[in-house]
Amino acid sequence: MRTSQFPLSTVKETPADAEIASHKLMIRAGLIRKIAAGIYTWLPLGLRVLRKVEQITREEMNKAGALEVLMPALQPAELWQETGRWEKYGPELARMQDRHARDFCLGPTHEEIITDLARNELKSYKQLPITYFQIQTKFRDEIRPRFGVMRSREFVMKDAYSFHLDQESLQETYDLMYQAYSNIFNRFGLKFRAVIADSGSIGGAVSHEFHVLADSGEDAIAFSNASDYAANVEKAEALMPLGQRPEPTQDMSLIDTPNQHSIEEVSQFFSVDAASCLKTLIVKAEDNTLVALLLRGDHELNPIKAEKIAGVLSPLQFASDEEIIVACGCKPGSIGPIGLKMPIIADRSSTLMADFICGANQDGKHYSGTNWLRDLPLPEQIADLRMVIEGDPSPDGNGQITIARGIEVGHIFQLGNKYSEAMNAAIINEAGKNQIMLMGCYGIGISRIVAAAIEQGHDERGIIWPNELAPFQVAICPMNMHKSHRLADTVEKIYGELSDAGIDVLLDDRKVRAGFMFSDMELIGIPHRIVLGDRGLDTDTVEYQGRTDKESQEVAFADIVSFIKSKLS
Amino acid sequence: MRTSQFPLSTVKETPADAEIASHKLMIRAGLIRKIAAGIYTWLPLGLRVLRKVEQITREEMNKAGALEVLMPALQPAELWQETGRWEKYGPELARMQDRHARDFCLGPTHEEIITDLARNELKSYKQLPITYFQIQTKFRDEIRPRFGVMRSREFVMKDAYSFHLDQESLQETYDLMYQAYSNIFNRFGLKFRAVIADSGSIGGAVSHEFHVLADSGEDAIAFSNASDYAANVEKAEALMPLGQRPEPTQDMSLIDTPNQHSIEEVSQFFSVDAASCLKTLIVKAEDNTLVALLLRGDHELNPIKAEKIAGVLSPLQFASDEEIIVACGCKPGSIGPIGLKMPIIADRSSTLMADFICGANQDGKHYSGTNWLRDLPLPEQIADLRMVIEGDPSPDGNGQITIARGIEVGHIFQLGNKYSEAMNAAIINEAGKNQIMLMGCYGIGISRIVAAAIEQGHDERGIIWPNELAPFQVAICPMNMHKSHRLADTVEKIYGELSDAGIDVLLDDRKVRAGFMFSDMELIGIPHRIVLGDRGLDTDTVEYQGRTDKESQEVAFADIVSFIKSKLS
Repeated sequence: MRTSQFPLSTVKETPADAEIASHKLMIRAGLIRKIAAGIYTWLPLGLRVLRKVEQITREEMNKAGALEVLMPALQPAELWQETGRWEKYGPELARMQDRHARDFCLGPTHEEIITDLARNELKSYKQLPITYFQIQTKFRDEIRPRFGVMRSREFVMKDAYSFHLDQESLQETYDLMYQAYSNIFNRFGLKFRAVIADSGSIGGAVSHEFHVLADSGEDAIAFSNASDYAANVEKAEALMPLGQRPEPTQDMSLIDTPNQHSIEEVSQFFSVDAASCLKTLIVKAEDNTLVALLLRGDHELNPIKAEKIAGVLSPLQFASDEEIIVACGCKPGSIGPIGLKMPIIADRSSTLMADFICGANQDGKHYSGTNWLRDLPLPEQIADLRMVIEGDPSPDGNGQITIARGIEVGHIFQLGNKYSEAMNAAIINEAGKNQIMLMGCYGIGISRIVAAAIEQGHDERGIIWPNELAPFQVAICPMNMHKSHRLADTVEKIYGELSDAGIDVLLDDRKVRAGFMFSDMELIGIPHRIVLGDRGLDTDTVEYQGRTDKESQEVAFADIVSFIKSKLS
Repeated sequence: MRTSQFPLSTVKETPADAEIASHKLMIRAGLIRKIAAGIYTWLPLGLRVLRKVEQITREEMNKAGALEVLMPALQPAELWQETGRWEKYGPELARMQDRHARDFCLGPTHEEIITDLARNELKSYKQLPITYFQIQTKFRDEIRPRFGVMRSREFVMKDAYSFHLDQESLQETYDLMYQAYSNIFNRFGLKFRAVIADSGSIGGAVSHEFHVLADSGEDAIAFSNASDYAANVEKAEALMPLGQRPEPTQDMSLIDTPNQHSIEEVSQFFSVDAASCLKTLIVKAEDNTLVALLLRGDHELNPIKAEKIAGVLSPLQFASDEEIIVACGCKPGSIGPIGLKMPIIADRSSTLMADFICGANQDGKHYSGTNWLRDLPLPEQIADLRMVIEGDPSPDGNGQITIARGIEVGHIFQLGNKYSEAMNAAIINEAGKNQIMLMGCYGIGISRIVAAAIEQGHDERGIIWPNELAPFQVAICPMNMHKSHRLADTVEKIYGELSDAGIDVLLDDRKVRAGFMFSDMELIGIPHRIVLGDRGLDTDTVEYQGRTDKESQEVAFADIVSFIKSKLS
């Protein structure tokens, strides 16, 4: 392609509403244009990237044996009423009425539609397992659309749904999809992690999120530096620390600590690490009484873990100051486990502390030199209550935990019978009896991936695409081609050879100076650049520079195709 | 692909709401399934056809230099208010409000969005001409969706929009698109006509419709048997007949014709052809007086032609019986031009009649043997008032008119400045002044083409796809493959060879009898069928039969690939 036939739409201005790099760069590089809040047009350059994401996804889904269908965006309310989601989904579901006042929504997801299809099309266990997928436009009426196509109201998704006779078959397809997703993200050329995730409101017990790693990511991911283990930080288990509890070396003393409330204040007051202070938090129990949670001072409570403990109220709710004064006899900031009249749950790590400082349940007083067993019994319940931190042992026993930020771009779920039961999607099993099918569902945010790839790959000059997603793989920037027939002929020859080799080439045939071409090609993120001027004609060479290379290098005309091919492979 | 991996969804039952062949066959062959009135899921087999239609269209649009974009389905009301269409469009526009009660519509077309894009992106005449296109899902809230995907509420369209500095440039792109459309429909392998059309409510002066020919088509098309001329029947000109008016041979007589009103009754009464009777119709004039229109008795009034004549009220309105009695002195059925006190407009053909019969403006009386000039003067105004009929001379002077029925699947328009003026889409011209751009727009009904192809190609056994649109080009039906390793090996070899040659093959590896396979493959319309049984192993031949062939023929194993290739080219 030539810029004369494929005009670039690069702009200098960054839109006022663009908060993150990918949003700014997608506008500046001319990939998208805003129509309304959270609603965009994909310009030709952006659409080329979107189509590459689609195509790689489609190929790998086909390879995994999934069948492509195309379901409608308009979904009748009746199907959503069958699963109860018409009432439950809330205002993110874009709803409308047709001219006959019948209710419809614009699908944010297609469980109801596919389950309706499956209950009509699938009759016998012999047709199972089966996986359908589509690449289709979805709608979500975000209260505050932002971050460009990262959180928009209209977007392209790949969604897939599988149907099974039993859990074993569901697990098999789930594993197959896990592998297909890994293949897809590897082909994108993106750094990613498959993380164990909570399944969220959509239901089901087992799920993984696929995250593209990027410093700007909304989610924190804990992963092992020595294995495949990765989990959302909220989900990662903090193991019981190895080793024994140290023996006491100090006596316990009651110390006046006026106005010292937080762990930070108390540890500074005693000139010790936060790790030597015990944190006591009071939360509500299910029966409306109170429960105390103990953590090492440098550890952070993980509310998701706490609220899953039997007896603790879910969602987690902290006791009010008044409730604490009544129950503990002091204000928050001086609470401690000694003499506390309520059930106590200790985080694993806190039980290995020795000579620690804790509140004395008297305002302005703390104990120092406290020791388990000698000064107070170990709490009856010991549990994993805290957020993992860098350096924790990996829960799978291999290596240590590293924490990185990620952008969720894929999600696979084992839905079980949530939708099939509600919609009576049954087949005849081998015994000739009706049997409700099990389901899995598997999503990839196609448009989101374009933004995530930019979050992962960019610098101050613009986008840095991986080879597989780049709108064009190679840019040819000829210097003063319009003034030299000889140069123009050579440029055309090289352009033709690269194109014939199946490489996506953009020839910049604009009458602009080289620096202008370079900054455009860097902004739009073309991974490989070839510069050719009159000087090169004498030596039969071009100047090659990769998007992230510090220096350019000379490549002989004769070697260009094989050189670029080696760079692309 | 194998039927074990790509299960067919053929069904015996025809849905009750399916009125036309394509709708019935799309359900029976398992191409689509209904979700709600006018809303369908495309099953894997149907989607393969849809994607082929998309891909051919995309390739030819790219070849014509159009730039692919992807605009949103959700369109803010503000843009539609700028052009006034928010008020004008009526209930076919699917409207909704977001959670903040802002008005949106689901786009049935994208003039407003693209014009907004153009006014922001295009600054200089140097960027013109430019053509954008997209292949995208559209919505139209049909009052009565029917005919399956032919008139549905959610459907896929290719829409394109071009921007120009002047009419000459618009005409150039229009001609380019006309050619691209011809290429597209030729590649589809469909019989079609590009017909001169009225531009309708969307505006603009020059437009062509592209029709796929099919007996069930909603539109009648008049085309020449000797040239490219084609027009919607309403638009085709009826030329002044060649030759002279015959000399009178009869005297004029006033005849009692009790209860003879219609042309049919009168011509039977006189035992003459309808062509010997003169039809007189009374319509309203613009100033609310009346006008008489004269036609040869066998000719039909074309109201579109009549209402375009200066002075005639548009839309055309017939005089009431009461008005006729007052103005003519008789009831309708006895009106004639002799002595009529109102302006008379005669259709060209009627002026060459001789010895004709006409009403006498007295109830129950007609004149016979009437002749122009001798018995009454020729009307002052002679015009083209009638529908063309088969055998009329073609308006372009080449050949005779044939009439066929067609399904409109494409439409190209010269919009002019209708949208660009309303939305102030201007560029800086060569003189440095602001200038409103001219626009063209070009649509193809992608999903509609699938149905239209079936309307054109089907028989009592099922669909007959052209090679280019068939979901699979070749079906291999092995007889008892599961019982013979030797047969299975040969089948796999042939399947592999054809697939390697880039041919879309469906291998029917189901354990079903041959007749079952055949009827499925005929129903889903695979154009080429290869049958292989044990007998063929002895002679190293397969049985080949084309979908419309009466007999099968033997083809040697060694020749299969080249034989099929020749059938596909």
